[in-house]
Amino acid sequence: MSRDFSFTLRATDGPARLGRFSTPHGEVDTPAFMPVGTQGSVKAALHRDLEAIGATIILGNTYHLFLRPGDALIARRGGLHRFIGWNRPILTDSGGYQVFSLSDRRRIREEGAEFQSHLDGSRHMLSPERATDIQANLGSDVAMVLDECLAYPATHEAAADSMRRSVRWAGRCRQRLEELRSRPVEGVTVTNPGQAQFGIVQGGVYPDLRLESADATVEVGFEGYAIGGLSVGEPSDVMYEVAGATAARLPDAQPRYLMGTGTPEDLVECVARGVDMFDCVMPTRHARNGQLFTSQGRLNIRNARHAEDDGPLDPACRCYTCARHSRAYLRHLYMSGEVAALALNTLHNLTFYLDTMGRIRDAIAFRTFESFRREFLRSVSSLAVES
Amino acid sequence: MSRDFSFTLRATDGPARLGRFSTPHGEVDTPAFMPVGTQGSVKAALHRDLEAIGATIILGNTYHLFLRPGDALIARRGGLHRFIGWNRPILTDSGGYQVFSLSDRRRIREEGAEFQSHLDGSRHMLSPERATDIQANLGSDVAMVLDECLAYPATHEAAADSMRRSVRWAGRCRQRLEELRSRPVEGVTVTNPGQAQFGIVQGGVYPDLRLESADATVEVGFEGYAIGGLSVGEPSDVMYEVAGATAARLPDAQPRYLMGTGTPEDLVECVARGVDMFDCVMPTRHARNGQLFTSQGRLNIRNARHAEDDGPLDPACRCYTCARHSRAYLRHLYMSGEVAALALNTLHNLTFYLDTMGRIRDAIAFRTFESFRREFLRSVSSLAVES
Repeated sequence: MSRDFSFTLRATDGPARLGRFSTPHGEVDTPAFMPVGTQGSVKAALHRDLEAIGATIILGNTYHLFLRPGDALIARRGGLHRFIGWNRPILTDSGGYQVFSLSDRRRIREEGAEFQSHLDGSRHMLSPERATDIQANLGSDVAMVLDECLAYPATHEAAADSMRRSVRWAGRCRQRLEELRSRPVEGVTVTNPGQAQFGIVQGGVYPDLRLESADATVEVGFEGYAIGGLSVGEPSDVMYEVAGATAARLPDAQPRYLMGTGTPEDLVECVARGVDMFDCVMPTRHARNGQLFTSQGRLNIRNARHAEDDGPLDPACRCYTCARHSRAYLRHLYMSGEVAALALNTLHNLTFYLDTMGRIRDAIAFRTFESFRREFLRSVSSLAVES
Repeated sequence: MSRDFSFTLRATDGPARLGRFSTPHGEVDTPAFMPVGTQGSVKAALHRDLEAIGATIILGNTYHLFLRPGDALIARRGGLHRFIGWNRPILTDSGGYQVFSLSDRRRIREEGAEFQSHLDGSRHMLSPERATDIQANLGSDVAMVLDECLAYPATHEAAADSMRRSVRWAGRCRQRLEELRSRPVEGVTVTNPGQAQFGIVQGGVYPDLRLESADATVEVGFEGYAIGGLSVGEPSDVMYEVAGATAARLPDAQPRYLMGTGTPEDLVECVARGVDMFDCVMPTRHARNGQLFTSQGRLNIRNARHAEDDGPLDPACRCYTCARHSRAYLRHLYMSGEVAALALNTLHNLTFYLDTMGRIRDAIAFRTFESFRREFLRSVSSLAVES
């Protein structure tokens, strides 16, 4: 186990957990939402704005950084934190999810995943060892194991085979990390010796496979555990059920991270089932498409009804966008294709997500999570979504 | 004359002038550079960043705002300042320059300019009265008269005809403004009663025409005077000579604005010839193309030599971009098409321009402008431009 990573469970309210984890780049209060900084930049946001609105940790995508500018170049810069000028914690994924998304440009074998770059068609092999090495070069505070992400729906047999391969890969990732921790390895620069590594539970929507995967992954032993392979097309209630059952099987003393989820409602519902960490492109991607989250539901800023609206996006919001600009102006910027529309919308949506996490943490601390949850779901999701 | 607009000449150093003008939205120290906020947004910059780096006045383009979202909508919002949430001074152009740039989509008559929208092909007439009305709806602090911008080169005869038409148009603009100041006019909302109006001197590169235009425009009488029709393709030395000769013919007690110029060297050279105000898309447009201004000359961030450079764009620069990020990261963001590249580059280039204006003002105040000018031209423009 890394001596530089620790997790403290500070309070619980039913299955909901208030916690804090420590990394070489600082602490993160959980439940936490991690904005996605795909290529070393959270799209349309500047680091100082992320800090100001309370982003304590961001996510970087190994696949993208590996291809451009390359993990070796980043290692020569001293690691991802120094390269991008972000001094708070960073979690990197393994690159697996993007590689599996390439569908006809990749081939999976026991050894690893062969794939062709979406940028230039060049061929690469992403093995568990390579995914571990790349993340060592990047020097994130939390690295993820390479796992196989199955499309939904999958048969029980396919899900079982895939999950068991993921468990074998998890073991190889952990072994490689321990090698890197114990001795210098040619071609790898461990830019963050205190890096932690999380295992990932797979198993599709099959309870027996999820439990088998959780037990086997915990058996390998990691600083934290993720729940992968959800938010891939299954209904919300199935996702909630699987996430909840899986979370309940994981060790209390370590953080639980639900990958790639979700809507604000999803975050609340999964915190209610014992999840501690989330990431999702939804707030940033929706912002760039004009879809904005408010305390009164979602709106689309392109809608003509905003053209002469002098009010803010959300009177309950503390962000710069809401403090300074009207819906009328934001609609004009969006319709005119101004870069400022992307920046202002992103700032707002991320503030909504991060403030929601803050309210969740407060509610757990005060043991009022259930009433917060009911009120939140009533106000946010009962209203029609404007598309 | 507007009682809400005044100009004070505070010091001179040769023809270079240190001044300050007052508007209903605050004061502007001159020589001043105005970032261009074409559609009510300085491209890729947020208002708070413009304020933080010392932008005391921005420019809005009447042509663009008239077409989208429309000056009537902006008037219903209370004027451009309230619509865009910018509380410092704004200058608007007349729309003439953009209309004349439409070339085959416009026709000029004595009445005004007929043109077709670049957005939807709709037909419109921009007359001197209409240009004045639109700007009254917008409520900028400084409105510009409608003038005819001639392409370079033009014969003496064409330049003379065009210039004399501009003088007649200037008279009509002034008459319309006085009408608006004295009584309500159907369909026009004077959203900023303290709005000033500047005349524009034309006459191509012909000294006799420039002097005739200056005299005739001053005869009409405006709160300030602009020099138009330069930076349209003529050599720099011709531009400097015409700007200098024209500036010298204008009243000492009023501000002089050279429209659409230019490089940092142009600003210094034209301040040296008595110009007080500038605007140009160069810092913002170049930023979006990766062309960055530094105290050591220009660079292009795409260049491979920056790929592993951990240093800032410009060690002499105080901007957020230089304080936080390396050339290596900025190149990565640019090559990866990240929105943050546009924002960070824009912040840097505008800081360079605004800091240059601050240094110019200091040099005039200390009567060291000539040595500043020599040193500036030596350090900035003697180095090769990296394209």
